[in-house]
Formats: sequence, structure tokens, C-alpha cells
Amino acid sequence: MLRQLFFVISIAVVALANSQRKLSLDFPTPLLGNTSPGSVWPQPESHVSTAETFPVAVESFMFTYASKSNKCDLVYEAFKRYGAIIINSAGDQKLRFRPLTTPMLTGLEVNLMAPCEDYPSLDMDESYALDINSMAVATLTAKSVWGILRGMESFSQLLWESDSGQIVANKTNIIDKPRYAHRGILLDTSRHYQPVNVILENIDGMAYNKINVFHWHIVDDQSFPYVSSVYPDLSAKGAYNPITHIYTIEDVAEVIEYARLRGIRVVPEFDTPGHSTSMGKGQPGLLTECYTGSSPNGNYGPINPTVNTTYTFIQNLFTEVKSSFKDAYIHLGGDEVSFSCWQSNPAINNWMKSHNMTGDYKKLEQVYIQQVLDISAAIGYSYIVWQEVVDNGVKVKADTVVEVWINNHPDNELAKVTALGYRALLAAPWYLDYISTGEDWKRYYSYEPSNFNGTAEQKKLLIGGEACLWGEYVDGSNVTPRLWPRASAVAERLWSPETVNDVDAATPRLHQHRCRMVQRGIPAEPLHPGYCKHEWRN
Amino acid sequence: MLRQLFFVISIAVVALANSQRKLSLDFPTPLLGNTSPGSVWPQPESHVSTAETFPVAVESFMFTYASKSNKCDLVYEAFKRYGAIIINSAGDQKLRFRPLTTPMLTGLEVNLMAPCEDYPSLDMDESYALDINSMAVATLTAKSVWGILRGMESFSQLLWESDSGQIVANKTNIIDKPRYAHRGILLDTSRHYQPVNVILENIDGMAYNKINVFHWHIVDDQSFPYVSSVYPDLSAKGAYNPITHIYTIEDVAEVIEYARLRGIRVVPEFDTPGHSTSMGKGQPGLLTECYTGSSPNGNYGPINPTVNTTYTFIQNLFTEVKSSFKDAYIHLGGDEVSFSCWQSNPAINNWMKSHNMTGDYKKLEQVYIQQVLDISAAIGYSYIVWQEVVDNGVKVKADTVVEVWINNHPDNELAKVTALGYRALLAAPWYLDYISTGEDWKRYYSYEPSNFNGTAEQKKLLIGGEACLWGEYVDGSNVTPRLWPRASAVAERLWSPETVNDVDAATPRLHQHRCRMVQRGIPAEPLHPGYCKHEWRN
Repeated sequence: MLRQLFFVISIAVVALANSQRKLSLDFPTPLLGNTSPGSVWPQPESHVSTAETFPVAVESFMFTYASKSNKCDLVYEAFKRYGAIIINSAGDQKLRFRPLTTPMLTGLEVNLMAPCEDYPSLDMDESYALDINSMAVATLTAKSVWGILRGMESFSQLLWESDSGQIVANKTNIIDKPRYAHRGILLDTSRHYQPVNVILENIDGMAYNKINVFHWHIVDDQSFPYVSSVYPDLSAKGAYNPITHIYTIEDVAEVIEYARLRGIRVVPEFDTPGHSTSMGKGQPGLLTECYTGSSPNGNYGPINPTVNTTYTFIQNLFTEVKSSFKDAYIHLGGDEVSFSCWQSNPAINNWMKSHNMTGDYKKLEQVYIQQVLDISAAIGYSYIVWQEVVDNGVKVKADTVVEVWINNHPDNELAKVTALGYRALLAAPWYLDYISTGEDWKRYYSYEPSNFNGTAEQKKLLIGGEACLWGEYVDGSNVTPRLWPRASAVAERLWSPETVNDVDAATPRLHQHRCRMVQRGIPAEPLHPGYCKHEWRN
Repeated sequence: MLRQLFFVISIAVVALANSQRKLSLDFPTPLLGNTSPGSVWPQPESHVSTAETFPVAVESFMFTYASKSNKCDLVYEAFKRYGAIIINSAGDQKLRFRPLTTPMLTGLEVNLMAPCEDYPSLDMDESYALDINSMAVATLTAKSVWGILRGMESFSQLLWESDSGQIVANKTNIIDKPRYAHRGILLDTSRHYQPVNVILENIDGMAYNKINVFHWHIVDDQSFPYVSSVYPDLSAKGAYNPITHIYTIEDVAEVIEYARLRGIRVVPEFDTPGHSTSMGKGQPGLLTECYTGSSPNGNYGPINPTVNTTYTFIQNLFTEVKSSFKDAYIHLGGDEVSFSCWQSNPAINNWMKSHNMTGDYKKLEQVYIQQVLDISAAIGYSYIVWQEVVDNGVKVKADTVVEVWINNHPDNELAKVTALGYRALLAAPWYLDYISTGEDWKRYYSYEPSNFNGTAEQKKLLIGGEACLWGEYVDGSNVTPRLWPRASAVAERLWSPETVNDVDAATPRLHQHRCRMVQRGIPAEPLHPGYCKHEWRN
């Protein structure tokens, strides 16, 4: 096992000794400027470096395979991406620095110790080891292609621009692996349509933060932009606009491939039986008709769980979804089901009476969810559900992942879900659609997910978390700066060791990381008064 | 007087009768889509229109002068700008619609009834009258070039895209003038540097909202990006970066000219004696040295008011500023002066003793401010100050404008300031740097500035207000979507009649206006779930 070769230092050590810009104390608040150059975000498990720096031969920098390395299309594409990032980081300076007498860093040699893989998965190995020393070529070793991708991201972050404008790297040894296997970001493309290039931009942002799951909340009450070939009316009638506000099969494939190349899973969510208003527009009979007295009032409620056509529809739709989305998991939703429409509908009540569940709408919800879970499992899907599904007593498969989102003692919910033996994801503290003045990233950063009552076995069932940016108030005009660098705080919480939790120590690194994202084309918003060497749009 | 020709309807009437997208009631919240086409934001004093529409000859549309009209470079430049906006509004559709048998709207004839003016001013006349009827050419009449600019903006907003993609305009008569003379937006270029093209983009946004003052909070504690030719060290040592994070004389001139063409004043703020840390970096001896016990502790406080060199510096700097900035007004700041550093400094205390003001630091502040006001007045500047200047009893010129910013019963402060006979600006309810989840624009919209105790004469002394976007958390990455459309709420409050105050009625118009800004290249953020026909980056 490669891991046995690693010299693991359990507490991350960062010894970058180059001088930071000293800020005078008369400023009302410490400014953020060109601090923490060459720091890595999220912080590696072990990062040992010295003040010694090597100039980087930017112009002629080469990525190569080690002689015994496996080859992989994902690695080759990453060579191209990071080659471009390194060239761009040098800006106009890149031609000024010709080989010097000091040792130059001329390349990175990659040693992939296992065969290539096609798609990232929950079980992927993201560990890697990275070494920059006086040798001309730095080395990156990993047991999987996913570790190579993570290591190349770290390598690119180690390069920084000196005061003279030269790109340099400190003597560095990094041994790294993530703390949690599922580190996700939810984007909502229903409340507002998010253009494909905006999604791709944020997948780049995810890669820069070692986020490995794009939770695509693709449809909801407000609009249904997903184009189904089996049920084309779903987007034709349910999208905001059936031509301009949709995701075609090609769009979905493009997003998945873009994410795959960056080691990021794409998990779609088709939330039912609530949050499905737009789904009903193109599928007559799917939703429950709401009644006032003895007459339908023109409104529709959750999916009608009492008719067979519902389940045929779900089976056909999810079968198609599975053929588009490559991940083993689907998110089935199951949150916030309102019972009032079911309560008003005579046919629903008659059905419940004949099935001995008069008045028990929670039971009715269970009946629905149970069948949807069974259909999904039969298709071959593993699934994630929002916490209400388990809270309401639905029997779920043993490999179900339960996502905890209600921000009322989520620690108690984690204790409960894991005590039942289910795996859990934590989202509750990280709803980035809630905004407030000031540095809310510090609150996200400080929330320790493992702080719940439970055995060591239960703690292992917490497999990660997600930062959720619901779409009520974001679209292409503002979604990217609202997501970054706030989601970066969650990214470090989920990747780095639990002991990496000092907000003050993180601040200059996060500022540097934000400026790095800006330089790479992500309009990440500022944390605090200060500046970046390369400002957005300057 | 042209105004006597106007048929003024005191309560604005909008009778746009074309069908709006009917939203089904089963949506959890009303969605915002293609609503209120052809509505004008801020709403004119009188806007009468019918359901009759005329197709617009987009391709061949002509702006012309009426035969008796005065000519003006500002009008000519506006012809070009609005011509481009009209062409762009048609998108790909513009070639599809050739002259039809119905009356086409082929042009706008402009009648400027007075000679051209060079620079906008507090006293400018912004009234105009606009008529679109079955004649091929619509008419716009105004007593000043500023009214022509406002009217052209309204005209451009009256054009909308029908379901078939044709640009049309309703039969419309508008008679309009602003409620308040000073409608400003503060941007802060010190806490973060705002690139020049970002400033220009937001000046466009101001023009689209009939905002007429850019309050340029150009320097503050954190950085001094203003390049002074008399004191080049101010930016050389006080800017975040003396080459990339500065405003040169040419940059300032570009901003002023860009704003002038749009009828927008540029009022610079040089805040003293506090908020001046960065100013001290390039001007040794300007700031007060802070002491711990009997020794300087290396920190600096407010400007030292006890030495003559301070006033020589201010006089030279402000004389230079006056030669760059063309407006009659300068904002002199005067807010948030901390006394602790003055209190610690033996030389300051000795001076105060010898001037019979031992321990009275408020008096010391008065001495400073009084001299700065006198210097400014002698240079020929009128001035705006933050409310503390008057609160602290400084004697100011009769034409001083006092800006009320402290959000603790600003109505009482307005009553007090106007009772003293000063003109006032209201900023307190409109600090857009404070953010919260949801539709905060409704709060800004609902604040009625004239609701304070005072005589009719006092009410007249309230000359307007400002939306302030302080720079702690915004730079080029996010400043524009954070400003718009939230500042639009303030724009309508300050332009439209007091009676235009129904949030629900404003919502679809503001959504439409936001989409219009997006289409024109301003990444204005969404208000609420919904969509624009033309999304940002789609």
C-alpha cells in the first residue's frame, strides 16, 4: 500500500518563512494584501516547507509521467489545464526570467501507481504525495488518478509571484488526503436558471477547492429546465423558457464531462413528492388536485401517490436520468412535503380509507417514498435523501445517505441518523443562500461536523457535507461571487484535519486563495478590506 | 415657462394594458418573469399610456432635433448611446421586421428649448415631456439638456419586445420631473480599489436609474488611490499599489467626462480629520502621533490640527482637487473622529492648554473643521459634510449640505439640521453595504424621507439622498450586482412622487427594470425566483 510509504504528520505543519507584508497597527482593521504566498487551500494533512525557494521555469515548464507511471486521459487533460494556469500566473513577467544559476524548477513528474479510472466515485482514493526539493523536477505520487488531480491542484497553489515578479516555489513536502469522502456544493437551477457556462465556471471553482461533488438541484417547483427525451413536455411546459432556459442532453453531458476531468461527481436531484410543481405542468395527472370544499380550486399539491401512473412516470424518468448521469447516486429529495392539498382531495382520502390509513398523511408520504426508493434501487441507483425521509420512518436501503439540512441542532439529527446505521451528510450549517453583513465564512469554518453524540462507528458514518446555495436570489449575475470564497471555508473544514480550525490562521491563507481564484478567472468576492495583486477587472 | 405647458397629473397613472404572463397560483411564491413590459423606472410624475402599440423601426430608427431646437454635444452623444441600446434591445430579431402597414415609430424628435450646458449641477433642470402617438416620430421636449437626457432614458425604457420578438412602444404621454434635486450613490474606492471600468459600468447604471450624483468616497484610512501631482507621495505610499491601484489625473478626467455625458455630477470626498490613515503615509507630520505614556507608540491618529503645515497641505491639496473635479461641491467628511490619540499626545495637550481648551477635544475638532471649511470656501468650493460636523457645533456656511447617515432616528436629525436652516441629504436608511437574506430593497423603497417634524420650509431643505455602498466587502468581483437593483429602489424613492410607494405595484416593474439592466450589460442581481428573457451570461 502506498499509504504505508507516507510519512504522516498528523498535525499539519506550515513553515513558510518568507516575509509577509507587515501591516501598520494604525489601520482600523488589519488589511489583507499579498499575504501567505504559496499557501495551499484547503490545508493539506501534512505540509512541511522551508524558506528556501526555487525559481520556476514557467516558459518551458513540463509535466511528465514517471517511467513506471500508468497513463490516463484525465492526467493528460490536467497537464494542459495546469500548464495554462502556471503560464497565466506569471502574467507579463514570464519572459523576463531566463534560466539562472540557482536550481530551477523545470517540471513536475507524475507517478500514477494504479490504472486509470473513468469516473470519480464516493469510494475514490484522493490521497497523494508531493515533493519539491533542489532537484529540477518535483514529484507527485498517488494511488489513483483522483489523487493525481488533487496533487496537481496543490502543486499549482505552491507557485507564487515574488516581489520581483518571478514565479517561485518553496522547498516543500506534502502528504495529503481528505478527511471526508463527500465534499459537495449544491447549486439550484430551478428558482433561477443558471447558464451552462456559469455552472462550468463554478466547477472550476470546486476543483480549485478540492470539492468533489456537484449536487445539481436541477428541478424544483419554480421551473423544470431538464430536457427529458421520454417526457419532452416536462421542459417544454415546465421550463421558464423551453428554448433558452433548459439543459439539453448535450448540456448535461458537457457538465458531467467537465466535472469528470476535474475529479468531481455530478449527483442530480429530482425532488419529489413535494417541490414538483413545475414537473406537473408537462405531465397531466401527476400532481394532486387541491380542493376547496367539493370542487378543485385550480391549484396543485404534491405528486399524487395513489395512482399507478405516477410510478410508471417516475420509473421511466429515472431510468432516463440514470443513462445521462453517470454517478452511482441520485438525490431523491423528500423534504418539506405539505399535507394540506392531499387533505383536501376526496379521491386521495378515499384511497387512504380503502388502504386503512385514514387521516395518516405521514403514512401516505411513506407509501410514496418507499415506492420511489424501491424503483430507484431496482434501476441500480444508490440514493441520497433529505432528513425528513428517515425522520418520517420510511424504510430505506442500508446504503442510503441521509442529508441533514434543518438547522435546529443538526448534531442531534446526526446522532439519530447514524445510530440507525445510515450514512449521513451535513448541510445544515452551510446554507450559503443566507447572507449577512461581514465575515460569515468564519462561522462556516468553525462548525465542527463530528461534534455529535455517538460512537466511533457512528462518527465514521458521517461521510461529509455540502455547502448549499439555493437559487432564490442568485443567477448568472451574482452566483459565483456569492459562492466563493464562502464555500472555500466549508471545503477546508471537510478536507483538512479537524485540528486545522484556527480562523485567524486561516484568514490570510483564505485571502490568498481568494486572490488566486480571481487571477484564475473566478470572480470570488473579497473577505475584508484589502487588495489582490491582480484585481478582478483591473 | 415650459412647465406651464405641461398637463400635470399629480398621481401617476399607468394604464399599460397588454397581457402579462399569468402565473398559476400553485407556485409557492409568485414568480417574476416577463412582466410590466415598457414600464419606466423610476416611475414618471405622470405617465399615461394605452394598450395601442406601434412597432418600432429599429433598423432605421433616427434621433433628430426639432427645427427650433438648440444643439448640444451632450445630446449628440446621447443619440449615439440610445441608438445602440435600441438596436441591442432587438437582439437577433431586428432584421425580421420590415415596414408594416400599421404606423411605425421611426424616430424621436428632440426639442431642447435652451442653450446647451457643460456640466450638471445641483440646480439643473431635469424636467421633460415625452409623447408617443400615431405620428411616425415621437417627441421629447425639455428646458435643459439634462431633461433631454432623462427623457431619452425614459423613451428607451418604453420600448419592449413583444412575444413575437418585435420591438414596440405603447401610445404614451409622459410629463416628468424629479422630486429631489440630489439623488446620489456613494462608492468607496479606498477599502477596496474599484477598477475604472467598474466605476464606468456603475455610472451607466446610475444613468439608467436617473441617479444624478456619483459621490466618490475616493480615499479613506485603508488606501489613498488618488494621484496628486502636488503631493505624489500620497498615492506612491498610501495606495495599495502605487502603479496598479491608483486613479491618475487621466482616470479622474475620464470618470468625470463619462458622468457628465450622462448628466451625473461627480462629487469627491476627502474625509478628514479622521479616516485619513492612508493620507499620512505620504505626508509625514500630517497625522497625530499616538503615545503610550511619554513615548510615541508607532501608531497614528487623526490629522494634527495644531500645526500650520496641516492647513497648508489641505489648501494645496484641495486647490488641486478643485482643478480636477468640476462640480461646485466637495464632500469634506468630518465623521467618526476618535479623540483617544489626541488625548495621548503631549504636544496636542500643550497646544490646547495655551489656547484655553484643555480637555475639550470636541472644541479641538471644531477648530480643525472650521479651518478646513474656510479654506474650502476660499477656494470657491461649496461643501457637503457628514452630520457630526453640525452635531458638534461647527459653524458652517449657509449653503452647506449636511448628510445624515447615523441610522438612529434620522428623522430627528433631519428635523434638527433643517431647523438650523441647513440643507440636508438623507443616507441613513440606504446603507447598501448592510446585507441580509431576502428582498431588502422593499425596506429601502418604503422609507419616506420627508417624514420628519418640520415646517414646509424645512421640508424644502431636504434636497435628496444617497445610497451608500461602503467598500469593506465589495470590489470589482461583486460591487455591481450588490448595488443593482437595490439602489434602484432608492432611485425611485428620490425621483418619483411621494405617492408612488406601493411595494407590490413596484415589484414587477423593478423586476422588468432589473432585466433591462442585465440586457444592457449591468449584472444586476435577481430580486426573487423568476427569470429574464435575456439572462446574464446565457
